[in-house]
Amino acid sequence: MRRTNPITLLLAAILAFGFVIFVLSPSTSSASPVSAGSASSSQQRREDDAAENPLSPPTKPFFKSQPVRQDGQQAPPPVVQYDLNKLSSTSQSAANSERILILTPLARFVPEYWDNVVKLTYPHELISIGFIIPKNKEGNAALAALEDAIAKTQSGPIDQRFASISILRQDFEPPLQSQDEKERHKMENQKARRESMSRARNSLLFTTLGPATDWVLWLDGDIVETPPTLIQDLTAHDYPVLVPNCYQRYYNSEKKKMDVRPYDYNSWIDSSTAQSMAAEMGPDEILLEGYAEMPTYRTLMAYLADTTNPNPKRAIELDGVGGTALMVKAEVHRDGAMFPAFPFYHLVETEGFAKMAKRLGYTVHGLPDYFVYHQNE
Amino acid sequence: MRRTNPITLLLAAILAFGFVIFVLSPSTSSASPVSAGSASSSQQRREDDAAENPLSPPTKPFFKSQPVRQDGQQAPPPVVQYDLNKLSSTSQSAANSERILILTPLARFVPEYWDNVVKLTYPHELISIGFIIPKNKEGNAALAALEDAIAKTQSGPIDQRFASISILRQDFEPPLQSQDEKERHKMENQKARRESMSRARNSLLFTTLGPATDWVLWLDGDIVETPPTLIQDLTAHDYPVLVPNCYQRYYNSEKKKMDVRPYDYNSWIDSSTAQSMAAEMGPDEILLEGYAEMPTYRTLMAYLADTTNPNPKRAIELDGVGGTALMVKAEVHRDGAMFPAFPFYHLVETEGFAKMAKRLGYTVHGLPDYFVYHQNE
Repeated sequence: MRRTNPITLLLAAILAFGFVIFVLSPSTSSASPVSAGSASSSQQRREDDAAENPLSPPTKPFFKSQPVRQDGQQAPPPVVQYDLNKLSSTSQSAANSERILILTPLARFVPEYWDNVVKLTYPHELISIGFIIPKNKEGNAALAALEDAIAKTQSGPIDQRFASISILRQDFEPPLQSQDEKERHKMENQKARRESMSRARNSLLFTTLGPATDWVLWLDGDIVETPPTLIQDLTAHDYPVLVPNCYQRYYNSEKKKMDVRPYDYNSWIDSSTAQSMAAEMGPDEILLEGYAEMPTYRTLMAYLADTTNPNPKRAIELDGVGGTALMVKAEVHRDGAMFPAFPFYHLVETEGFAKMAKRLGYTVHGLPDYFVYHQNE
Repeated sequence: MRRTNPITLLLAAILAFGFVIFVLSPSTSSASPVSAGSASSSQQRREDDAAENPLSPPTKPFFKSQPVRQDGQQAPPPVVQYDLNKLSSTSQSAANSERILILTPLARFVPEYWDNVVKLTYPHELISIGFIIPKNKEGNAALAALEDAIAKTQSGPIDQRFASISILRQDFEPPLQSQDEKERHKMENQKARRESMSRARNSLLFTTLGPATDWVLWLDGDIVETPPTLIQDLTAHDYPVLVPNCYQRYYNSEKKKMDVRPYDYNSWIDSSTAQSMAAEMGPDEILLEGYAEMPTYRTLMAYLADTTNPNPKRAIELDGVGGTALMVKAEVHRDGAMFPAFPFYHLVETEGFAKMAKRLGYTVHGLPDYFVYHQNE
């Protein structure tokens, strides 16, 4: 449909020609010896696993030993069996070597985002990362900066290297060229923006989720600070869908010091007001949260935080979630939960995803006192 | 959620232990030389592509050459870039080397299904196949028989071998143990059966769709006869979603000869009656087609066939589709179209998929005079 236009095809071809294939040649692992203990067990796992694959797939499902043929080459497996029963997504994720897929839609490259991901203490050899980047000028700049950052990490200390990283370029135009924050948040722009974001998230998810993925961590490219134990902390709750509270650091000019304030208002408990509004809506209208023009009287997790005496383990049940940071068991996605790019119960994107997960029989939870921080532009 | 029960985990572990890892060691390609012309270009592509990968991923996206390191080994790519703009799903699929992913939910193994797939004339090196098999006794038998059939094909003539084959075992119980046709078609069993089938289709789709997949052909395991040019014929129309007419051969005792009759009633044009019925329904009720208890007065493609003077290229626009054979552009799935396991506009599974594709802005078509044949049990 969208690709049959020959001009579009030609433009895409010209654009594609401009991309440089980026393939790193990391030093051999023997050149960077690590010491004994857990580090060497990590290296052992890499050798048993990653090092065995000259070409690592997006989520590294191919870790079975292959027989050696008569000519000394390893044989290709024409048939690969995956027993989805053997997958586990549990509260003991790291101990069980559960595989995490971090998915990030990236419009601009924020160095603090990458620094924070590199500092995550979950074993990096169990982490695959997928990015999707729009095909516009800002996307090209983001790609170049991301490649530089990845190159440093993946050729650095072995224990910091990630299992695999995939970068997708979007095959459709984002509706808004501007990434200016005010422009982006205008209510009339939100529906088109969030439907486009849904398509990007789905392309990324459908393309990178593999048979060995246990958990998917959605992490926006402008999340600049999380606890380094983010993955362990979120998986420890063993919930199908779990969202931390997304705040922002800023300079409070009244108090004359740095302070925090809520940022993401998409995690909420539904209200009868919002449900009545939805009942009156046409099939293509959507409810949006955080806009004065549309008071929903939902209970927002953003306002349930106890910033003075936080209990980071306190969990509450939710009806809608934001996607700035969001931990999902892979089975929830495999059952079909995705990000609707059309009004689904008058909800789109991550809020529609929460509704869909609930329709599939899963619960949705949030952590009001567990904070991740959004960049302050 | 479903996996946290320790007894379930234990049972799954015991069951899993019983499975034998099935890895084939095909003869080297040099041992089976093929003649010149298109066959050698096919072999060239296999060597450039499949042979380069000791471990072929479900949909073989990893066909870039890797640099050779100082130690003589090929370097692993820590970063892989995929430009979704470079994908094409066009009417010239074979000429453009477009990659097809055949997806089959398999409850029982029907030898004629596999024979028919092997006879497809689309270049086999561009075809990957994914199966999902229930974890019950019948599933175990189906798996064993499928493995035997695959082993013969993948160690046979090179041009018949498929690019890669993945087999998934379902991680949930099918609601009905019986695959007896009458039991399966009872109306009260249909909702549970089709919601379970939706989960199976989604698991298969989310897990096997790769960044290089151009088209997805859904093909049920009891489709025993199609034209050998099925893939070329369906892609030639260049529609986002296209369904042929699923018929069945039987012995007509009145005419005393073999005859054909409609089999799949899920491809239809909507009616105002059906829409009124849906408007009266509760949120968890679904419309089903082909049951006398629930007359929908939809226009069924099954009855639009001209069996005496068929025009196999005649296409009509549809609102619902069946999944016995169904060609979908990969971008439709990547945008988020899946098989709802919950009532979606009072539709589930393939009919819900058609509605979702339309909500995403795609058209849905059918070919009333292009026939595929379902097994006659």
